[in-house]
Amino acid sequence: MAETKIIPPVSNAYSYPLLIKQLLLSGPRYSPDEKIVYADRSEYTYRELVERINRLANMLTEAGVKPGDTVAVLDWDTPRYLECFFAIPMIGAILHTVNVRLSPEQIVYTMNHAEDDLVLVHDDFAPLLEKVSDDLQTVKGYIQLTENSQPVSTSLKSHGEYEALLAKAEAHFDFPDFDENSVATTFYTTGTTGNPKGVYFSHRQLVLHTMAQVGSLGFSDQMPLMRSSSVYMPVTPMFHVHAWGVPYAATMMGIKQVYPGRYEPELLVDLLKKHKVTFSHCVPTIMQMMLATESIKTADLSNWHVLIGGSALTEGLCNAGAKLGIRMYTGYGMSETCPLLCSTHLTEDDVKLPLEEQTDRRTKTGVAVPMVDLQVIDADGNMLPHDGKSKGEVVARAPWLTQGYLKEPEKGEALWEGGWLHTGDVATIEPDSTLVIRDRIKDVIKTGGEWLSSLDLENLISQHPAVAATAVVGVPDDKWGERPHALVVLAPGEDVTIEDIQKHLQQFVDSGEINKWAIPQQIDFVDDIPKTSVGKINKKQIRDQLH
Amino acid sequence: MAETKIIPPVSNAYSYPLLIKQLLLSGPRYSPDEKIVYADRSEYTYRELVERINRLANMLTEAGVKPGDTVAVLDWDTPRYLECFFAIPMIGAILHTVNVRLSPEQIVYTMNHAEDDLVLVHDDFAPLLEKVSDDLQTVKGYIQLTENSQPVSTSLKSHGEYEALLAKAEAHFDFPDFDENSVATTFYTTGTTGNPKGVYFSHRQLVLHTMAQVGSLGFSDQMPLMRSSSVYMPVTPMFHVHAWGVPYAATMMGIKQVYPGRYEPELLVDLLKKHKVTFSHCVPTIMQMMLATESIKTADLSNWHVLIGGSALTEGLCNAGAKLGIRMYTGYGMSETCPLLCSTHLTEDDVKLPLEEQTDRRTKTGVAVPMVDLQVIDADGNMLPHDGKSKGEVVARAPWLTQGYLKEPEKGEALWEGGWLHTGDVATIEPDSTLVIRDRIKDVIKTGGEWLSSLDLENLISQHPAVAATAVVGVPDDKWGERPHALVVLAPGEDVTIEDIQKHLQQFVDSGEINKWAIPQQIDFVDDIPKTSVGKINKKQIRDQLH
Repeated sequence: MAETKIIPPVSNAYSYPLLIKQLLLSGPRYSPDEKIVYADRSEYTYRELVERINRLANMLTEAGVKPGDTVAVLDWDTPRYLECFFAIPMIGAILHTVNVRLSPEQIVYTMNHAEDDLVLVHDDFAPLLEKVSDDLQTVKGYIQLTENSQPVSTSLKSHGEYEALLAKAEAHFDFPDFDENSVATTFYTTGTTGNPKGVYFSHRQLVLHTMAQVGSLGFSDQMPLMRSSSVYMPVTPMFHVHAWGVPYAATMMGIKQVYPGRYEPELLVDLLKKHKVTFSHCVPTIMQMMLATESIKTADLSNWHVLIGGSALTEGLCNAGAKLGIRMYTGYGMSETCPLLCSTHLTEDDVKLPLEEQTDRRTKTGVAVPMVDLQVIDADGNMLPHDGKSKGEVVARAPWLTQGYLKEPEKGEALWEGGWLHTGDVATIEPDSTLVIRDRIKDVIKTGGEWLSSLDLENLISQHPAVAATAVVGVPDDKWGERPHALVVLAPGEDVTIEDIQKHLQQFVDSGEINKWAIPQQIDFVDDIPKTSVGKINKKQIRDQLH
Repeated sequence: MAETKIIPPVSNAYSYPLLIKQLLLSGPRYSPDEKIVYADRSEYTYRELVERINRLANMLTEAGVKPGDTVAVLDWDTPRYLECFFAIPMIGAILHTVNVRLSPEQIVYTMNHAEDDLVLVHDDFAPLLEKVSDDLQTVKGYIQLTENSQPVSTSLKSHGEYEALLAKAEAHFDFPDFDENSVATTFYTTGTTGNPKGVYFSHRQLVLHTMAQVGSLGFSDQMPLMRSSSVYMPVTPMFHVHAWGVPYAATMMGIKQVYPGRYEPELLVDLLKKHKVTFSHCVPTIMQMMLATESIKTADLSNWHVLIGGSALTEGLCNAGAKLGIRMYTGYGMSETCPLLCSTHLTEDDVKLPLEEQTDRRTKTGVAVPMVDLQVIDADGNMLPHDGKSKGEVVARAPWLTQGYLKEPEKGEALWEGGWLHTGDVATIEPDSTLVIRDRIKDVIKTGGEWLSSLDLENLISQHPAVAATAVVGVPDDKWGERPHALVVLAPGEDVTIEDIQKHLQQFVDSGEINKWAIPQQIDFVDDIPKTSVGKINKKQIRDQLH
């Protein structure tokens, strides 16, 4: 480490750790009367938000929560949840946003693993917790979140109902300073195998993510996603990566926020219309559902900007949105990255095109946001050039990446091998800094010292007119390391040979698009391709069958 | 301190200290071909900026600069200076931006006090340094900054000329990581008495100031000061608080930048026109000079946004600008605060008014920017309500305030009394969070347990038709602590008594605007009011004469 000059602070204890409470300073100053809306149910002002967060802090303290404790929340997307985003970490406790879509067994696993002390639970999820409450080893009590004045009767050890407790609590709380590296939030991410893993973020990380997000969402004249007159409605759940952290950014800047509760497509569209929502983030599936509603046809959506993430924004979806005037953008990141790493970047020339012709730019993974160092590296950890050709694993450094997994240091070390966070994605970086994701690293075929994208090869094979579907995986090979192995489903009535497919691929070798060892020697004609429960190609199963 | 939960990072050394090198990541990614312009002399792209910063780092290293060393710069506002803003701290050294307007004695004092090792000096300032070079105790060498290919001949121990050395230096430098609390920059601030004091900022502080600035300058739809298609030209010197830190923010976002060199009003206006500058920051004096040029009358300035600071934006100046379509805003801060604390805040309703009628809002000190905690406190350190009436000293906490003064810990402790930075300004905070500066604390009159603004009282006295000028200071009083003492210059031909003035003031007591003890018992009719060299009322001299 370089021997730089560091001057110790003066003795009067100047210190200003980065804490979530600071994110709450400016919004209420800028817009004390701006609204926080809860679906078609209720609304209140930023002034009231601040008071409710103070009351909630007192309520939690009276329920026995101390700094360092963990408070779990099971709720839909509500202003209550926003209050928890602030009050729980602001008293020094840890907010566990429970993924309510997990199986009951997984929910129990995560709540025990996170050592939840107090649980705020919506009536809709109370029956689930009642069934498993004996298995929850650390939980000492519950607070009920109810939509009406009367909570459901429950066998859970309840302190009472949220609104009633809030009304009784003191309206002022003196939020303490503490170490900015204190854990503020945790939630669990699921893979294809094993138990869910707990990622976690500190106050410092969430503050820096929020500051970077405010800068990158509002700065570009080509992409005015979120600015002072925006109306924000999240459409990715608050339990998943804090709704991408945007509620923190929206609150910091004091803009109108609309929380939809449950994701019912008709309700979402109604809220869009009623509140003239201008900015949302969304996964493709939910967007498809909204586009399929009848009521969206009569909505003016020409000022709705939507950041799409979770899975890739396809050209089809982007075009379908463009027909309604919706501006979609790609966001790239993952649970481990808080999540923002990259987003679509549009130039002045790009936006001069008709919206329908901007699809190519909008569906690319985009350019890394400020403060993020993003590279592609080869299998030996060498950085690859940004030439649009060199394929490698995407690795990142940024001030807001999870530092590991809760209580699983060995998994954290694998994630951070070489001091960079490994995303598991394989990509190229264009000379103009645009990241283009090519594959998942576990699906990429390492052959002859090169990385061959299984997705690219599937794309080329499927261009043969006789091919209805295909999947390519890597199989071990003594000489080459791995070789591609293709499964091919032929279209009805078609009859081609392995050699026909290979000859078809030879043209891409001749044009320089792929190397000759990319042509699979092993091609099996099959009746169908194994799929996962959510309809993706199940490459793990294919590899297991072939090995 | 609360016992929160802190999880040590995994062993693979995840760490991402906040360093100035990260501010250079995104601009060149967003706009590699965008221009950095040097007056009417030259221009280059962000791509070249990055390369030149790398070369400069090698040049400095070859000149013997090591991490922890201090490198002084004496230059006009140039892209070279921008390169120094990055390269010097990025190698772990400290950038000392020398105030070239100080007297030669003060310059020698600051350069010795900062322990400058290497000096980059523009030919215009070389004669000055030649005269005093024997007194510079720590300087080991010089690099010449010249506008032509041939530097002036000099008796200074020169390594050579900047551009020639840059051309010879390697084009790649591997910038190290180090502690984010390392000192990055220093410069000196002058008061009315004593030697200049060295304030200093760490990498962490400059990164956080930059991130907050990007968020607050671009986010508001009513105040689009700096966004992706902005063209930026600084009109406050780069040696003073890093030109308010804006060059860092502009570079981070990749916008076009125009550096004017010397502040010649005609040249500034020419550059405004030629490059269609949209954003500047400026002190009132320079703005007055620009408004007085002939050429400004033919400029289209309807898209020029100017943040005014240094001294208050007066209604007169704001109105004069508005007549030309110039949008002016008040910025509030000081050398010690990096500097941004507050800026004008405009609502949707405010900007619906004709520009000329927005003056009242634009000339107020404004609302604290995100992440800044700003309060007014009484003499006992108690926080005062934001009621628009309670007058107290403005104190601040923010992640980017100087932690002290170089080698003068006792002054740092006074600055940070009670853990808040004391600005020395007396103000009220309106219920809508707008800060209104009323006085300097050293000029405020503490009488009968209340703080009486000398400026407010002068304003009331000067409303008497016979009064041409007035100055009010506090004088010690056994019973009241202090009492106001007024000097009054009468308009030609006027003849009034002390009682007339007191009777005039009584109406403001009756209306509740001031307390009865605000009426001075002591009023002297004088021929003129003592002034400082820059034309401000010299209250220190008045107090000294009266005591």
